[in-house]
Amino acid sequence: MINTDLWLTEYLNNSMGHTFKIKKKLFHQVSEFQTVDIVDTDYYGHMLLLDGMVMTTEKDEFIYHELITHIPLLVHPIPKKVLIIGDGDGGVAREILKYPYVEEITVCEIDKIVVDACKKYLPVTAIGFDNPRVNLQVNDGTTYISQFKNHFDIIIIASADPVGPGEGLFKAEFYKNVYDALTDNGIMVNQSASPWSMQTQFKNINKSLIKIFPIVKPYISVVPTYPGSFWSWTFCSKNIEPLDAINISLSEKISESCKFYNSEIHKAIFVLPNFIKDLLAA
Amino acid sequence: MINTDLWLTEYLNNSMGHTFKIKKKLFHQVSEFQTVDIVDTDYYGHMLLLDGMVMTTEKDEFIYHELITHIPLLVHPIPKKVLIIGDGDGGVAREILKYPYVEEITVCEIDKIVVDACKKYLPVTAIGFDNPRVNLQVNDGTTYISQFKNHFDIIIIASADPVGPGEGLFKAEFYKNVYDALTDNGIMVNQSASPWSMQTQFKNINKSLIKIFPIVKPYISVVPTYPGSFWSWTFCSKNIEPLDAINISLSEKISESCKFYNSEIHKAIFVLPNFIKDLLAA
Repeated sequence: MINTDLWLTEYLNNSMGHTFKIKKKLFHQVSEFQTVDIVDTDYYGHMLLLDGMVMTTEKDEFIYHELITHIPLLVHPIPKKVLIIGDGDGGVAREILKYPYVEEITVCEIDKIVVDACKKYLPVTAIGFDNPRVNLQVNDGTTYISQFKNHFDIIIIASADPVGPGEGLFKAEFYKNVYDALTDNGIMVNQSASPWSMQTQFKNINKSLIKIFPIVKPYISVVPTYPGSFWSWTFCSKNIEPLDAINISLSEKISESCKFYNSEIHKAIFVLPNFIKDLLAA
Repeated sequence: MINTDLWLTEYLNNSMGHTFKIKKKLFHQVSEFQTVDIVDTDYYGHMLLLDGMVMTTEKDEFIYHELITHIPLLVHPIPKKVLIIGDGDGGVAREILKYPYVEEITVCEIDKIVVDACKKYLPVTAIGFDNPRVNLQVNDGTTYISQFKNHFDIIIIASADPVGPGEGLFKAEFYKNVYDALTDNGIMVNQSASPWSMQTQFKNINKSLIKIFPIVKPYISVVPTYPGSFWSWTFCSKNIEPLDAINISLSEKISESCKFYNSEIHKAIFVLPNFIKDLLAA
């Protein structure tokens, strides 16, 4: 009997990969920028891929979205204006909408086709796009950011990997523009690659950031569908420390709506194992 | 041109898996208990598989071995006798040898073929087997443990998954015998499955343990080559809390020889995300 199961494999470094059983292909389009696919997987539900790389899935999206959002939102004293670069699936915007005092959430996503596909096939993630506080800008983040000075309280860079259309979001010039676009209490968080399987990228991102921001603190967890095992985000700010300033009572309230984040996790994810400390010190 | 690369895939739940590029098959034998393979992989170096399941690799073994060992060893006031059940690769014994006051390290491994294969192909892990403080007992852990009452200060269960020859190491009767074999200050740690992709096993292990031990605290990290993403170990004791009693000065000294463990990690790995807390409370 022939096995007709479909499997999708994302390879890393041409030497390992993650493989997922597919129930159905839901969406496929080659946009101006990349190949956009959404498939229905057996274990992870609907999965978004850009140029064949897994971006998010229904089952594990909460980890990435909660961790990139609630760390900066819960240490800034009172953010009013937040910019998200990337986030075509809308998951970061959805998490920010939990804060009633945030007045303006701008999502700057380069590829409208990603947004439309996510609205249709990842509706739980993309729900925020329908909210009047969310302002979608279909634009290149590197161009968009350069218009602003001293404007945003928080900027979140929810980029894809440093290849393809997201490459410019890992460059020193871009980080400098992000710094300038932030207010005096400003905070930036970006996804900063895998400190396990993408160590050179992780190191280079941190090296670039410490030249620009006075406070740079990477934090780690795991996104099960990313091939890198350990994953990192980096907290950068002009003067706020990510652990000194946690709004504990609000953090506890936000945690009630979270599947991953809680006040203790907020601190624990900043603790780095020796191999990552050594990597950063090298 | 035909691609002649060899790849090895470990599947989980018949719906996802990890795949690794193989440079060379090094060892293959069907023992009395299981199929034992060692292959040389492109990214992870030499890799041990039992019945096709990844047990350890040269590149990431330090995470599992440091975390299962140093948590109990650094909170027990002065362990003299330690029993390890499983650990055919010797990695736990190697870590325990860092403590000069431990007089007797008994490794109870059911399958001599695993030990011999690891001595040859995973020599950095298996180095402890040559030390006179290490006493290898080729025996079934469930039988071996039942001979002892009030004898061991620490028992570490470095078992494979709860299928195959290791199945008995997850049963209530075995845990009861472990409890009885421990001294009054005794501590047991076991690997307790993935709280992400093996949630039923993880829950059942914890349910069984809390019926027997007064103190039961799971902790989590990641073993990159295990298909479960998040992985767990569970700390159980008769009266010692895993965080109250850390020997900080010794912990700092031990950390110098570690690639993962440090005193802050010791605390951070006990912090659980909401979905795991909910799983345990259910």
